[in-house]
Amino acid sequence: MQTLNFTLNELLQVKDRIEPFIHKTPIVTSKILNRETGAELFFKCESFQKTGSFKIRGATNAILSLTGEEVLKGVVTHSSGNFAQALSKAANLKGIKAWIVMPENAPKSKKEAVKSYGGIIVECLPTLKSRENTANEIVEKNGATFIHPYNQREVIAGQATCAIEIYQEIDSPDYIVVPVGGGGLISGTALATQCFSPQTKIIAAEPKGADDCFRSLQQGTIIPMESPKTIADGLRTGLGDLTFPIIQKYVSDVITVSEDDIIHAMKLFWTRAKIVIEPSSAVALAAVLISKERFVKKSVTVILTGGNVDIDNLPF
Amino acid sequence: MQTLNFTLNELLQVKDRIEPFIHKTPIVTSKILNRETGAELFFKCESFQKTGSFKIRGATNAILSLTGEEVLKGVVTHSSGNFAQALSKAANLKGIKAWIVMPENAPKSKKEAVKSYGGIIVECLPTLKSRENTANEIVEKNGATFIHPYNQREVIAGQATCAIEIYQEIDSPDYIVVPVGGGGLISGTALATQCFSPQTKIIAAEPKGADDCFRSLQQGTIIPMESPKTIADGLRTGLGDLTFPIIQKYVSDVITVSEDDIIHAMKLFWTRAKIVIEPSSAVALAAVLISKERFVKKSVTVILTGGNVDIDNLPF
Repeated sequence: MQTLNFTLNELLQVKDRIEPFIHKTPIVTSKILNRETGAELFFKCESFQKTGSFKIRGATNAILSLTGEEVLKGVVTHSSGNFAQALSKAANLKGIKAWIVMPENAPKSKKEAVKSYGGIIVECLPTLKSRENTANEIVEKNGATFIHPYNQREVIAGQATCAIEIYQEIDSPDYIVVPVGGGGLISGTALATQCFSPQTKIIAAEPKGADDCFRSLQQGTIIPMESPKTIADGLRTGLGDLTFPIIQKYVSDVITVSEDDIIHAMKLFWTRAKIVIEPSSAVALAAVLISKERFVKKSVTVILTGGNVDIDNLPF
Repeated sequence: MQTLNFTLNELLQVKDRIEPFIHKTPIVTSKILNRETGAELFFKCESFQKTGSFKIRGATNAILSLTGEEVLKGVVTHSSGNFAQALSKAANLKGIKAWIVMPENAPKSKKEAVKSYGGIIVECLPTLKSRENTANEIVEKNGATFIHPYNQREVIAGQATCAIEIYQEIDSPDYIVVPVGGGGLISGTALATQCFSPQTKIIAAEPKGADDCFRSLQQGTIIPMESPKTIADGLRTGLGDLTFPIIQKYVSDVITVSEDDIIHAMKLFWTRAKIVIEPSSAVALAAVLISKERFVKKSVTVILTGGNVDIDNLPF
């Protein structure tokens, strides 16, 4: 199978298409964090994105790519995280039904959020098998189109628009650091980089407690994610067969970080930049903080993927 | 004594003078919070200001108003909060010595912050008497100029520039809601409003546990602040003889809020807007949330005064 690829024009079309439905998020800087790292840091704040994460980009592009018939029959996905909210909102904007398969033990706050965006929650057992079966049943029963949270062409193309915004604002960054979970964002970022700034190096940031990407790259094959142990709840998913080859081909390195590194980075950013980022975002900043020597005097853009935290259960 | 006043030109000159040394802070909106309140809300984010609060505006103007001789001899203030950091930084930028009198029991994090901005900490006993005596000694011994955190013309003029930025971006707001502690910011806001948008109503927001402004207005005389009980540490100070008459003359109303209201507003803003605000800022949002009927369909600007929180001691 050939690695997924996009032309520059294709990506610009995706950007134009989803632009009316998403925020162009700000890129912020911090003198204190520059001083602390010795790097010139730029933070792309997808935490300020609609629904609180970059996921709305891919979800919106997937929704806008449906045919007329598909629109009538609705969409379905399984996610208990940011993609659930994103697909609910993106579908809702177009008056499309969105079934969201969630494990019955998902936090109440996440269920509430999905409902508030208009998603229809369908509960399942907390196993991958049950999630897939439940989603399949909805596809068969209602003719709904399954949208994968990351392992899907339209979703990856949508996530790529985040990097386009970066390249339109920052001239040739040396590095972009991206957290990796299922690999949708980093794949989109890597493919956009090929089109817009091929000399920029893409670095993946991953929790040590969910380091399937690191191990998959080492072994040259997808290592499934088993019992991830990290507070970075957005990064507990395994790679897909679309995203892994892109990561293999275009990602320069993976930096893994400890739970303490994540909490430290999260607290540092909240305190210094006064911006609420979720643990998955902090993974990217943590990667820079523990590898300062690599980034000294470099232009480094860190993608802060989201800002959805459970404020009553903070890890500090 | 005549109430303090500024001409429009005077305020614009102050704005020009301090502009190179401060941030023009963003004004953000939130569809969710608009929906929740029925008002059109604008949040002026001084939480993103240098040193993490609006205090740098007044401190910078005070420093830039010193004579050549005063510059040589340095400045002194007593504050354990945001003004301590602000004056340290403003003085440091101009290479001026700043003695900061702080009670010996002030949190270590606050002392560290003052040091990091270049302030010279002088410890005193945790009483008003000791603070004043210690500051006076420094004035006498070193010839330093005392800068009051709020009850001083140059400081109030500096704080007024925040409202000027609001009026340059928002056309005739119906209301500006401002937390009140010593009254420096609300006085500056009120005086700027007289010049730039006299029809805009100024509302003070105050914790019930430190409601000296509310009681002072009721009784027509300054009621000293005694044993304030609030997590809004920036609002534990009493009014000054310069600020009180301005508040009496130009502030439409004071809304007092409970500690629960403050914590709820703080959590709500962190969660929805993804911006870290300190309890004193949350007091202003809380005032809007508990008085929704008054603000329905109105254009309401809320000044979020700062974002300096002790992340390891959050009230939730």
